[in-house]
Amino acid sequence: MQPAMTLIYAISYFAVVIALAFAAWLFLWVKRQKCTNQKIVEVSALIKAGANAFIRKEYKVLAVFAGVAAALIFVFLPTPLWRGDVLKNLSMTIAYIAGTVFSAIAGKIGIIVATSANSRAATAAESGIKPAFLVGFRGGAVMGLAVVGFSLLGVTSALLIFGDSSILLGFSFGASSLALFAKAGGGIFTKTADVSADLTGKVELGIPEDDPRNPAVIADNVGDNVGDVAGMGADLFDSNVAAMAAALVVAQSLTNPEVNTAMVFCYAALGLISSIIGIACARIGKRGNPTRALNSSTYVTTGIFIALTAGATALFEGFEWRIFLASTVGLLVGVIIGITTNYFTDDTKPIVRRVARASRSGSAFTILSGISYGFISALPAMVGIALSALCAYKICEPLGEGYAMFGISMAAVGMLSIVGMIISNDAYGPIVDNARGLAEMGNLGEETVRVADELDSAGNTVKAVTKGFAIGAAGLTVISLLGAYMSEVNVALAEAGRELISGFDVTDPTVFFGVLVGAAIPAVFSAMLMLGVDRNAQRMVAEIHRQFTEIAGLREGREGAAPEYDKCIQIATTGALRELIPAGLMAIGATVAVGFIGGVKAVGGFLLGNIVSGLLLALFMSNAGGLWDNAKKYVEAGNEGGKGSEAHKAAVVGDTVGDPFKDTAGPSLNTQITVVSLVASIMPALFAAFSLFG
Amino acid sequence: MQPAMTLIYAISYFAVVIALAFAAWLFLWVKRQKCTNQKIVEVSALIKAGANAFIRKEYKVLAVFAGVAAALIFVFLPTPLWRGDVLKNLSMTIAYIAGTVFSAIAGKIGIIVATSANSRAATAAESGIKPAFLVGFRGGAVMGLAVVGFSLLGVTSALLIFGDSSILLGFSFGASSLALFAKAGGGIFTKTADVSADLTGKVELGIPEDDPRNPAVIADNVGDNVGDVAGMGADLFDSNVAAMAAALVVAQSLTNPEVNTAMVFCYAALGLISSIIGIACARIGKRGNPTRALNSSTYVTTGIFIALTAGATALFEGFEWRIFLASTVGLLVGVIIGITTNYFTDDTKPIVRRVARASRSGSAFTILSGISYGFISALPAMVGIALSALCAYKICEPLGEGYAMFGISMAAVGMLSIVGMIISNDAYGPIVDNARGLAEMGNLGEETVRVADELDSAGNTVKAVTKGFAIGAAGLTVISLLGAYMSEVNVALAEAGRELISGFDVTDPTVFFGVLVGAAIPAVFSAMLMLGVDRNAQRMVAEIHRQFTEIAGLREGREGAAPEYDKCIQIATTGALRELIPAGLMAIGATVAVGFIGGVKAVGGFLLGNIVSGLLLALFMSNAGGLWDNAKKYVEAGNEGGKGSEAHKAAVVGDTVGDPFKDTAGPSLNTQITVVSLVASIMPALFAAFSLFG
Repeated sequence: MQPAMTLIYAISYFAVVIALAFAAWLFLWVKRQKCTNQKIVEVSALIKAGANAFIRKEYKVLAVFAGVAAALIFVFLPTPLWRGDVLKNLSMTIAYIAGTVFSAIAGKIGIIVATSANSRAATAAESGIKPAFLVGFRGGAVMGLAVVGFSLLGVTSALLIFGDSSILLGFSFGASSLALFAKAGGGIFTKTADVSADLTGKVELGIPEDDPRNPAVIADNVGDNVGDVAGMGADLFDSNVAAMAAALVVAQSLTNPEVNTAMVFCYAALGLISSIIGIACARIGKRGNPTRALNSSTYVTTGIFIALTAGATALFEGFEWRIFLASTVGLLVGVIIGITTNYFTDDTKPIVRRVARASRSGSAFTILSGISYGFISALPAMVGIALSALCAYKICEPLGEGYAMFGISMAAVGMLSIVGMIISNDAYGPIVDNARGLAEMGNLGEETVRVADELDSAGNTVKAVTKGFAIGAAGLTVISLLGAYMSEVNVALAEAGRELISGFDVTDPTVFFGVLVGAAIPAVFSAMLMLGVDRNAQRMVAEIHRQFTEIAGLREGREGAAPEYDKCIQIATTGALRELIPAGLMAIGATVAVGFIGGVKAVGGFLLGNIVSGLLLALFMSNAGGLWDNAKKYVEAGNEGGKGSEAHKAAVVGDTVGDPFKDTAGPSLNTQITVVSLVASIMPALFAAFSLFG
Repeated sequence: MQPAMTLIYAISYFAVVIALAFAAWLFLWVKRQKCTNQKIVEVSALIKAGANAFIRKEYKVLAVFAGVAAALIFVFLPTPLWRGDVLKNLSMTIAYIAGTVFSAIAGKIGIIVATSANSRAATAAESGIKPAFLVGFRGGAVMGLAVVGFSLLGVTSALLIFGDSSILLGFSFGASSLALFAKAGGGIFTKTADVSADLTGKVELGIPEDDPRNPAVIADNVGDNVGDVAGMGADLFDSNVAAMAAALVVAQSLTNPEVNTAMVFCYAALGLISSIIGIACARIGKRGNPTRALNSSTYVTTGIFIALTAGATALFEGFEWRIFLASTVGLLVGVIIGITTNYFTDDTKPIVRRVARASRSGSAFTILSGISYGFISALPAMVGIALSALCAYKICEPLGEGYAMFGISMAAVGMLSIVGMIISNDAYGPIVDNARGLAEMGNLGEETVRVADELDSAGNTVKAVTKGFAIGAAGLTVISLLGAYMSEVNVALAEAGRELISGFDVTDPTVFFGVLVGAAIPAVFSAMLMLGVDRNAQRMVAEIHRQFTEIAGLREGREGAAPEYDKCIQIATTGALRELIPAGLMAIGATVAVGFIGGVKAVGGFLLGNIVSGLLLALFMSNAGGLWDNAKKYVEAGNEGGKGSEAHKAAVVGDTVGDPFKDTAGPSLNTQITVVSLVASIMPALFAAFSLFG
């Protein structure tokens, strides 16, 4: 059958409608669950108010940023107004704004449902693991479906309306610039609160985690939501849009653009449908294992996606089997990266235990061994990404010119096909983490806390896998964005009547210059975020000390001596927003500077250097952080001396170092490399026209 | 004047003879200085015996490795025996062996003089800073002159005898493979001993550094010699040879090979002569500042080199001013990198103080801030290397085809021209560090220890600069090796009658595959070395505990209760050799594997990825390590609570993490990237003939 574009658009919109309707149903289901405990209702309301306050402030700041960016885009992109086409610039501006707005809506939905689900999951935990799991998982699934639904809706509509895939890059850049700030801002917020709460509570006062006397405890819970729900959601929204946009740009340059465009949409829609089925199937027995439940729904989704795309490939004329294979390779490599990540961060495996053992010799050895294994853990993922790109390319090369790069793009689309499921699993984490805290604060009893703990621990395990997956997906996406960048460069060069380029040769010193500078940026970017957490945490610790000194009876937990939670939330919010702007601007500014110094080729090298070192550092930091976290938990479970031992103190230092590694800097690098790739992709006409050495 | 090759060779040999004669004179001068204190003579003999034992054992292991490598080279390189030319393979084998032997001789000379100078510097410190400085500096200069003299001798002779610059790459690979093991082995040795001595002595028992009761104290002093003297010497020997070899390979491919070859030798010889003059001028007043003395001789050398090369360029017909400029740019950037490195690691500058301040909040913050600033510190050096390569290229491009790459090579040669001076400054460090220890063990009194301390502190400051310089030099060298690799690839392809390549395009997925894998290797390599130090230190700590338990009266320092120093030296030696082999083989093996999987293009990408991430991590680790070291010293000087405070404990953790960063992993990465580039450069014929995807 010949795939008519009308049919394909219809399939896309159908998938979007089903996904959003299902998300709405799940949301209402979560809302229908009861939460009767007065204390929990109260605290949960505080968390919700804090998260909303942060999101509101963040979006306000971002609106200013987006406004300025939109004005610049209108004047300069894709070509300066005085040279180009006003309509095209206007389209790109609108697409850019739409990208930020769609991503913001998805993030907001995630926050609403997550802060509603946490108290209900805590209450459900009183009746056992089965109902509590369902509340947590379905809450997460709302976010997963909303993100994928809105991204497919946005991409489909943008292409339908503007009919030009390069405008799509503007939409993608909008999503990406929001993600950069949401991820980095959320990451700084969450770790500021977490580190401050731990330092003052656990270390100085010796009170348990989530103790309501600690003024930072609500901020800590808010942080889980804004960092892991809104941040991670924006990140994967961004990757998903970017992967589709890159594939569509490449598809337009092929011999048979219509069929290949149809294929991208068809695969993306089938991915969403597979995630819906996978989510609907997620179940856990009465005494079941939540980790297994989460993982098996991922595998189910994977299987369904492969079966559905095979069917579509057989059905539609012009859908090439080789491209199907490339997409499958991408998906499988994503799963494999997740599994190897798990090997380095799971406490039933040898690595975590070795780091725990090293902690006996002191914190320096916890750090050294964690850094070392973190470095080693990057290897399998890097090789996996490299091999999948190479295989996808080689598989699709025989199809003709440009198809090889299309193969890589479709590997990225394949890998991201199950992203709905991945986000569901990921957003599940902070919901049950919050639920655990609420169960403690609401005095729901030991058994309930134990159930919540088990759900939380599953969330942590799955989180390592989804993080590896997110990095792998970003890796493949940016590789295909490199291809998209080259297409855009050649469009710009052709318009300027100049010689086209056939690639970026690293023995060309302008390219090499770009590579070296590009490689340094992720290091500087993560350093700025970590120093931001550090500065911000110092402010918050000072505030906590002030409260403990000035509020009489707070330390002893006297009745009526309530901490001022909102002060801490405010510090985290203001500080996060203050710290994230310079880091984001630095990354974008460096791209623009390299472009104006070295021209389009230098930017090609810059993107490569940025991708390579960004992936390396992201894998290193995420895995080392996960490793330290679990080594600490392993010691706390009574190994190597258990709680209170010297090994435990050392492991806590490792965990404190690992916190901004894994929750601030590491995962923000995904978005940093994507945003830089997109900035580059929409600016080649400018770089080609104005550059010092280009 | 037309530069006749005979004249140029004569100049080279003249410089070599002067350098070696001057080195011999300095050595005899050092030997003539007196050392009368019996205790010092005794301990110094122990250090000398330990260092020699290590070097002997290490060279034995390396002889086996080099034998196997030589056999493989004979059979397979540059082309397999059954296809190629026996004589060429034999030449390369001989050149390889000569490279290892020359490097080994230079290392051995360094060890001999350093272990003779330490006791004499300690004795001279009794008479004041002026004579003690001279002993330390002249001892270091013997090493500096020996390294540069032997490298110039080797390169000149190899080209004279074999008349083929690609055979030179074999010589360079020999030097490089020795350097890899000398640097990594020495680095593991020195940090094993250092960390174990600190942990058991300073931390557990609370006895001072260099206390003779500590069984690891001699091993610690031995470590300074084998790590910093032999290791650093081998590293810069390697960079120097590689820079010349790469420049000569490129020179041969130019329109005017003879004149350009002459230029390489002429510049290298003038660099050596400048270093000789700089060394001869080094003086310090009676109350003078040793840091200033070391730095000003470096600046003098730089000035003389620029003046001499300008003269030569004016004198000889065909020596292009543009190439002179490229060489000068390289040299100046080297100096600038040194200065920026200093900014991040000097305790009179804000960064070290910020890390010291962060230590007040606990060791996690020492680590986080050190890692962050370490990341940031990589940026200026990366940009500097990138810009110097770009400028050298653009300056020389108008000279014609191939000259642009020759410009980069000559920037590397220019940067390395003052390497004799740099090594002198660097080898000065461990000599006066040892002298400080000996002054303490020999009870030479407080004033003498203070003088030795001042000399030692100057050594540490200068070390940060020389390390930055070494990394910068390695960076430019490997860039030009990338050019040399491409020349060799095209020679191999031309011989096989296949299409030549014009570069390595990163949008080609085989290249991209190489880049990603190559970028992961330095991370894994440094992780393996750090884990090696960790394992080895655990063995040594166990041995120290055993001695303190079993040797009655040792802990109390009772007369006649002597520790078994040799046991610790033996553990450090055996362990270092055991741990370094897998890391070295991994790096070489990965190169070969990538070549056989992806072919010559994948290896081009692999080299790029390796260079980029190797430079990034080397700068990060060296600078972060230096930063923590000085932050600890800053706290110990009475700031942020001073010795014994919580901030001090945290700063000690930072220093312990930093030790293997800055003295094992970081500096070994220089050699790792060079060795990998050279392995690749001698194997293209094999990769072109046999590869899976190539």
